[in-house]
Amino acid sequence: MAKITSVSPLAPAAFPDLPVIDGVRFASAAAGVRYEGRTDVMLALLAPGSTVAGVFTRSATRSASVLDCQAKIGADSDDGAAILVNSGNSNAFTGKAGDGSVAAICDAVAAATGLPAARVFTSSTGVIGERLPHDRITAKIDALVADLDAAKAPEAARAIMTTDTFPKGACTTVSLPGGGVKIAGFAKGSGMIAPDMATMLVYVFTDAKIARADLQTLVGGINDRTFNCITVDSDTSTSDTLLMGATGTSGVEVTAEDGAFADALEGLFRDLAHQVVRDGEGATKFVTVKVTGAASDADARTHALAIANSPLVKTAVAGEDPNWGRIVMAIGKSGAAADRDSLSIRFGDLLVAENGWVAPGYREEDGAALMKRPEIDISVDIGLGTGSATVWTCDLTHGYISINADYRS
Amino acid sequence: MAKITSVSPLAPAAFPDLPVIDGVRFASAAAGVRYEGRTDVMLALLAPGSTVAGVFTRSATRSASVLDCQAKIGADSDDGAAILVNSGNSNAFTGKAGDGSVAAICDAVAAATGLPAARVFTSSTGVIGERLPHDRITAKIDALVADLDAAKAPEAARAIMTTDTFPKGACTTVSLPGGGVKIAGFAKGSGMIAPDMATMLVYVFTDAKIARADLQTLVGGINDRTFNCITVDSDTSTSDTLLMGATGTSGVEVTAEDGAFADALEGLFRDLAHQVVRDGEGATKFVTVKVTGAASDADARTHALAIANSPLVKTAVAGEDPNWGRIVMAIGKSGAAADRDSLSIRFGDLLVAENGWVAPGYREEDGAALMKRPEIDISVDIGLGTGSATVWTCDLTHGYISINADYRS
Repeated sequence: MAKITSVSPLAPAAFPDLPVIDGVRFASAAAGVRYEGRTDVMLALLAPGSTVAGVFTRSATRSASVLDCQAKIGADSDDGAAILVNSGNSNAFTGKAGDGSVAAICDAVAAATGLPAARVFTSSTGVIGERLPHDRITAKIDALVADLDAAKAPEAARAIMTTDTFPKGACTTVSLPGGGVKIAGFAKGSGMIAPDMATMLVYVFTDAKIARADLQTLVGGINDRTFNCITVDSDTSTSDTLLMGATGTSGVEVTAEDGAFADALEGLFRDLAHQVVRDGEGATKFVTVKVTGAASDADARTHALAIANSPLVKTAVAGEDPNWGRIVMAIGKSGAAADRDSLSIRFGDLLVAENGWVAPGYREEDGAALMKRPEIDISVDIGLGTGSATVWTCDLTHGYISINADYRS
Repeated sequence: MAKITSVSPLAPAAFPDLPVIDGVRFASAAAGVRYEGRTDVMLALLAPGSTVAGVFTRSATRSASVLDCQAKIGADSDDGAAILVNSGNSNAFTGKAGDGSVAAICDAVAAATGLPAARVFTSSTGVIGERLPHDRITAKIDALVADLDAAKAPEAARAIMTTDTFPKGACTTVSLPGGGVKIAGFAKGSGMIAPDMATMLVYVFTDAKIARADLQTLVGGINDRTFNCITVDSDTSTSDTLLMGATGTSGVEVTAEDGAFADALEGLFRDLAHQVVRDGEGATKFVTVKVTGAASDADARTHALAIANSPLVKTAVAGEDPNWGRIVMAIGKSGAAADRDSLSIRFGDLLVAENGWVAPGYREEDGAALMKRPEIDISVDIGLGTGSATVWTCDLTHGYISINADYRS
């Protein structure tokens, strides 16, 4: 595995000051799953009455913990819930033994907390295909339960890191007619999947009172517009998991139709999603790709992802090269409807191409100046309809090759 | 643009000794389209009675010359045909001016050869979005026609190179009941699209007598199993073109049902396709990905391309890392049907994973030894059905980043 020695140049200035969410407590520990000298297990315990929703990778080879979460997430319960996450080993492609590890961890958390095992959700992130040494984790459960503290979310965010160069957190408050509610969360991820060692995991908590079905609707819809709109390298993890818990301790009721809460939650999801891109392996540029005028929203998304995933577009951005011909290529190959003569391309506000050719007023030096910025906006109007989509990505650099090819796993 | 200073380590030992195909003659010239000190235009002239077939990129932003070829390729004619190709400028995304350039070149070739313009096919490869200085090309047409020579295919193969580090040729003969026929061809390509400067172009000739519709059937079908099964970087060119001419000068008739001819042609297409991969930008490994046991051939192809295009698989190969977990990841993300517990993975003959986990007898050092080879075979059996597919690709290295990011176009 590559030694990550420096923090991403695109990292936020600091980890945010996460507020306490009444009804959820955190603890972390060093279980020695794979790493030495750092924490690698975190436990979050949600009070009775909390609801939990989640979205998961659609990978056909998803991990044992993802499969277990999916089997549990649709059930209603007033018992509360626990989330146990380890880093260093993804427990993916570990056959039936992997299922056994998940069961052992869930049983141990259930025994220590008094929860039914059906209310224990787990995630694992790290190397694929190696048996999870779950005994090292279960040996720490009692200590984790004893250490639970509502203020320890920042430590939990650090315990789940793998190749991440910084911990990722976000928080917000929403004023609703019934009172104020808080939302706080953290994430990890540095590639869709990274050098044997990464994936995207997200945990978000609120003190709003939200029915399970409403929470699931909110989480699913907003996830499609945030975490499902980022790409580092087009490779999808076997372990992607987003879990959200609503403790209800504020007493403020929220439904799936509550626009103010949904907007705040989307902002928080987007913030965490952007932080994952900003920690993309080898990233030096944060790129927003916005497509409008497509025949449908789905077509717009197809075009945007074709641009964002194109190695030639990503290397052009890395080289600060305003190479709009590669964007034309990516649109052309995407498979979605496009017409050469109706599309237009902008870098930031700069019109680069239109009417099937370079824009008359475009000057290469203006494009080159824009590409020197750390944040690049690429906007494409397809000129065929009203479909739109925005995705976020990073550049493809020698750093990515170094992390993923220069070192043996 | 990157300076390419050394020949790919995966290049064949030498350019083959292409046989003369009676009825087709070649010429090349230095027109100064973009490059200095080298040839950049080639003309192939096919005798009256020749049939021509072709396949082209499906890009929605394909070039003016591709659109012109597609409009012409389905017509029957006994007039013969000409193929005029330039390197240095792709005449793609050049608006209506690009169409005018194609017409000007076709008209000039028609005037110099006595052919109707409808029988002149053109290709252009190189920078996207810059107006093609077609006057430089048309100024050379008379000299090209005067130089036409049946033995000058090797020079033609060199004139169409862009970032290619070696010219690509192949030839074969087929003994048929009616007599022997010859097939010879050449290609260029170094990425599906390369640093502003490349694409894949293929020209194949035979002295067999083949009706146009039969030739199109042969070319289309075999292309799907050869050139459409290679990927360097998942980026599809705006100019991909394959043209095949059958002069009929051998007097030996061939139909689309002739298995011996089709097999020989497929071998030649495959040879040229492999040479394109061997010249992939930055390539140090030639990788064959074979998928069997999929629910359908289409599913097998989806899995194979997901593996071949995965940046994490490609960087693992570059790092000589037997990282089969990344292959599991790629299968999982492909969208085609797979089941964790039924798939198996082999490197060469070495069984790596089966039954949802690492194979009991697999030793990491055996996998590592196999990965040191310049040619890597990755075989996956999905275990669900009888669908199969084979694709070919190369690794993703610092060389790719250097060619595409370190230099401004």
